[in-house]
Amino acid sequence: MPVKQLKNITILPGDGIGPEVIAQAEKSIQAIAYRYNHDFSLDYAFIGAHAIEETGSPFPEETLRKCRKADAILLGAIGDPKYDEKFESDLRPEQGLLALRKQLQLYANIRPIKVYDNLTHLSPLKEKRIKNVNFVIYRELTGGIYYGKKGRYENGKIAYDHCVYSESEIKRIAILAFEAAMDRRKKLCLVDKANVLETSRLWRSVVKEVAKKYPDVETSFLYIDNAAMQMMNSPAQFDIILTTNLFGDILSDEASIIPGSLGLLPSASIGRNSCLFEPVHGSFPQAAGKDIANPMGAILSVAMMFRHFEMEQEALEVERAVDLCMKEGIMTKDLEVEVHYSCSQLGDLIYSIIAEDL
Amino acid sequence: MPVKQLKNITILPGDGIGPEVIAQAEKSIQAIAYRYNHDFSLDYAFIGAHAIEETGSPFPEETLRKCRKADAILLGAIGDPKYDEKFESDLRPEQGLLALRKQLQLYANIRPIKVYDNLTHLSPLKEKRIKNVNFVIYRELTGGIYYGKKGRYENGKIAYDHCVYSESEIKRIAILAFEAAMDRRKKLCLVDKANVLETSRLWRSVVKEVAKKYPDVETSFLYIDNAAMQMMNSPAQFDIILTTNLFGDILSDEASIIPGSLGLLPSASIGRNSCLFEPVHGSFPQAAGKDIANPMGAILSVAMMFRHFEMEQEALEVERAVDLCMKEGIMTKDLEVEVHYSCSQLGDLIYSIIAEDL
Ligand SMILES: [Mg+2]
Ligand SMILES: [Mg+2]
Repeated sequence: MPVKQLKNITILPGDGIGPEVIAQAEKSIQAIAYRYNHDFSLDYAFIGAHAIEETGSPFPEETLRKCRKADAILLGAIGDPKYDEKFESDLRPEQGLLALRKQLQLYANIRPIKVYDNLTHLSPLKEKRIKNVNFVIYRELTGGIYYGKKGRYENGKIAYDHCVYSESEIKRIAILAFEAAMDRRKKLCLVDKANVLETSRLWRSVVKEVAKKYPDVETSFLYIDNAAMQMMNSPAQFDIILTTNLFGDILSDEASIIPGSLGLLPSASIGRNSCLFEPVHGSFPQAAGKDIANPMGAILSVAMMFRHFEMEQEALEVERAVDLCMKEGIMTKDLEVEVHYSCSQLGDLIYSIIAEDL
Repeated sequence: MPVKQLKNITILPGDGIGPEVIAQAEKSIQAIAYRYNHDFSLDYAFIGAHAIEETGSPFPEETLRKCRKADAILLGAIGDPKYDEKFESDLRPEQGLLALRKQLQLYANIRPIKVYDNLTHLSPLKEKRIKNVNFVIYRELTGGIYYGKKGRYENGKIAYDHCVYSESEIKRIAILAFEAAMDRRKKLCLVDKANVLETSRLWRSVVKEVAKKYPDVETSFLYIDNAAMQMMNSPAQFDIILTTNLFGDILSDEASIIPGSLGLLPSASIGRNSCLFEPVHGSFPQAAGKDIANPMGAILSVAMMFRHFEMEQEALEVERAVDLCMKEGIMTKDLEVEVHYSCSQLGDLIYSIIAEDL
C-alpha cells in the first residue's frame, strides 16, 4: 500500500468542454484518494474566457496565486470563438494560457502519443504504419520565436519576430527529455533546422553535450521539414522527440491526429516549481454543455500528474481503468462507436473501476 | 500547331542522381522540340558539390551568369553527404542553392502534389483520405527567418535568428498564388501563425487586401500547427496553399510523402526575371550512378517549364506521356513494381511517346 499523500491541486476548469471533462478527472482523483487513503485538497480558479467574463482578465492575480502554491495544476481548456481574430487585444482567452506558462516558467510541454489497437480504423494513417506507435514529444514552451521581440517598422509595412534561445533554456529541457528516455526505449531525437538556423545550431551543440551524460541513450537528429514528413511516414520510429517551441507546436499537433482521436490525449507542462496537466483537445465549444465530450484526455492527464508526484502505482491504476474502458469499447460518441456513453457516465465508470478495483 | 519557339535553357545537373534524371528530362525537351519544331538551346553549368570540386565554389560566377541570361533553368539536385554537418562553412553544396535563389530572387517556390490512382497503396495515408488529392503549395522562398540576421552573443551562449517580412515580399507571391487559384478550383488557404507572430499578422492583412481583387477565390486561413494536422487528416481539402518560407518548407515536405513517392514530384521557383525547375527528390546519393533513379519528377518539371513559357499544349503532352507510363505500370524500382524499368529506359520511352505521338 502506498504511503498516504497530501497534495494541493489547483483546478482551472476554463472554457467550453473544459468544466465537463475536469469534473470527470476529479472523479478519478477522488477514486484514487478513496482507494489509497490519500488526501487531495482541490482548489478552484478562473482562467480564459470564463475569467474574462468573471474578472475582466484572462489570467487574474488570484489564479496566479493559487497556481503558485499548488503541488499541481489541472486545467480543462481555454478558448472561445467570440474572441477569435482579436489579435491585438490582451483580452484573448489564450493570453491566459501564455501568461500561465510564462509566470510559472512552465518550460517543458510533454505530449505522449499512443495508438490504441481498437482505434486504428480512426487514424488517417494505414494500420501497418501505426503499429507500436508510442512516443513522447518534449516541446520547449517559454522561449523561441513565440516569446521573442516582435513589432513593425516603416509605417507598419515591415514586420519582425525574433527567435532567441540560450544554453540554459535548452539544457534544462534536454535533461528532462534524456531522463524520460532512460525510463523508456532509450532513444531521443532532436528536431531542429541546424542547416539554416543559428538557434538550432545552439540546440544541437547543447544536446550533444547533455547526451554525453546519457551514453545509453541513442541520440539522433532530424530537420523539422524531414521530421514533419517522417511523422506521417513512419511514426513508430520515435521514442522521445525533443524540440523547440515552434517546431514542437507544429509536430505535436501533427502527431495528435495519429491515434485517431484528440479526445484521448493528455499533456503535462513542467516548470522548476510548478506543473500543469491538461487534455490536448481544447475547448471545443460546439460540444460544450452537451455531456458528449471525451473525458479520457483529462483523466489520463491525472495519471501523468500522479506519475509526476512519483505515485507510480496510482498512475498505473488510472491508466488501467482507461485501458479497460477502451478494450471493452466503452467510449464517448467521438470515437464512432454504435453504443456510446456520455462524458459523465464514463467519469462515473472510471471512478467505480478504480474505487472498487473492478 | 503551336508557333515555333526559341528558348535558352541553362541546365544544372548538380549532384547525386541529378545528372541521371536531368539526362531523361533533356530527352523530353528534345522530343517536344522534334515534335513541334521548336528550337531549344541548352547550356550547362556547375552547381553544388560538383561545382565545389570543379571550381572551389558551390555557385561559381559563370553559373550565375549563365542562369541570368537563360529563359529557364533546369536543376537536377544538390547535396553530398561528405559535406554534412559542415554548418559553419560556406563550402556546403546547399549554399549553392541558397545563393541561386537569393541572386535570382526566386521568391516563390511552387510544389504541386497529386495522387496517382494506381499508387495509393504506397501512400502512408488511407486510400479514402487521399482520393482527389490535387493541390499546389506556394512557398515564399527568399525572405523570413532563413534569410534574417542570425548570430550569437554572451560568448556564444545565446543564439538568435530574426524573421522579417515586408508588405511587398508578401504581395508579389500572393498575386502569383491567387492567379494560380483562378486557373484551378478557386480556393486559396493562407497558412500562418497570426495568433502569435507579428510577421504572420502582416501576411494575413496583405493577403486579405490582395484577395479583394479576386472575389471569385474562396480565401481561408489556417495556423501552421493546425495545417500540419489537416495535411495528414484531410489533404483533399486543399487547392492552393500560400505560406512563408519556413512554414512552406515544413508543409511541402510533409505533403510530399502523400503521393507515395518523392520521385514523381516536380517543382518550380519563380522570380521577377528568372525561373528554375527541379524535381523535389534531392541528390539521393545512395542511388547515384546505378540508373535506378525515378526521372518522372525531373520530366514533370519540364512540363511546368513549358507551362511557364505559356506552351500549354507542350506541357500537357509531357504530362500525357508520364500519365501513360504510370497507367501502364511502366515505372522505376522505387515504386515497388515487380517488373521495373531503368531511369534511362523510362527517359527513352517518354521520348518515343512524345516524338512519335504514341
Ligand atoms: Mg498548437
Ligand atoms: Mg525542406
